[in-house]
Amino acid sequence: MGTYMDVHHNMVGITGDQLKEAHAADLAIEKDEGVHFQRAWADPASGTVYCLSTGPSAEAVQRIHERTGHAADEIHEVPLSV
Amino acid sequence: MGTYMDVHHNMVGITGDQLKEAHAADLAIEKDEGVHFQRAWADPASGTVYCLSTGPSAEAVQRIHERTGHAADEIHEVPLSV
Repeated sequence: MGTYMDVHHNMVGITGDQLKEAHAADLAIEKDEGVHFQRAWADPASGTVYCLSTGPSAEAVQRIHERTGHAADEIHEVPLSV
Repeated sequence: MGTYMDVHHNMVGITGDQLKEAHAADLAIEKDEGVHFQRAWADPASGTVYCLSTGPSAEAVQRIHERTGHAADEIHEVPLSV
């Protein structure tokens, strides 16, 4: 299992409700890929969203995001944390 | 008080010890600016580090990072989170 930080661009104006809905959609199907989305943070001004997850691979994380209609623009495995 | 995600590039090969040392250096002086660095995640392969913090402004966060020798390349206020 790895830990991943993925980044979505072009989300200018995203609202708190939209972030919650997108996160809930990921949570609803994440078990299909053995992924868990832990947290997400959004900057509506620049349109940037960061998602922290655990899972077997970056591809597994992306498959969940693709199925819920918001593929990530970048996914970085982050094996180090403090 | 706001919540911020800042991003550092060009940190290829960063080690767990280096991440801990950098974070500890920030923690040691963060009160000078009313900032608190909560978490940090690093991808040594791409050289990307993400730091999550709270503070009065992005500029306050950057002043701490500058004083400890690792200015952020991007700082985004993230008022929304799940």
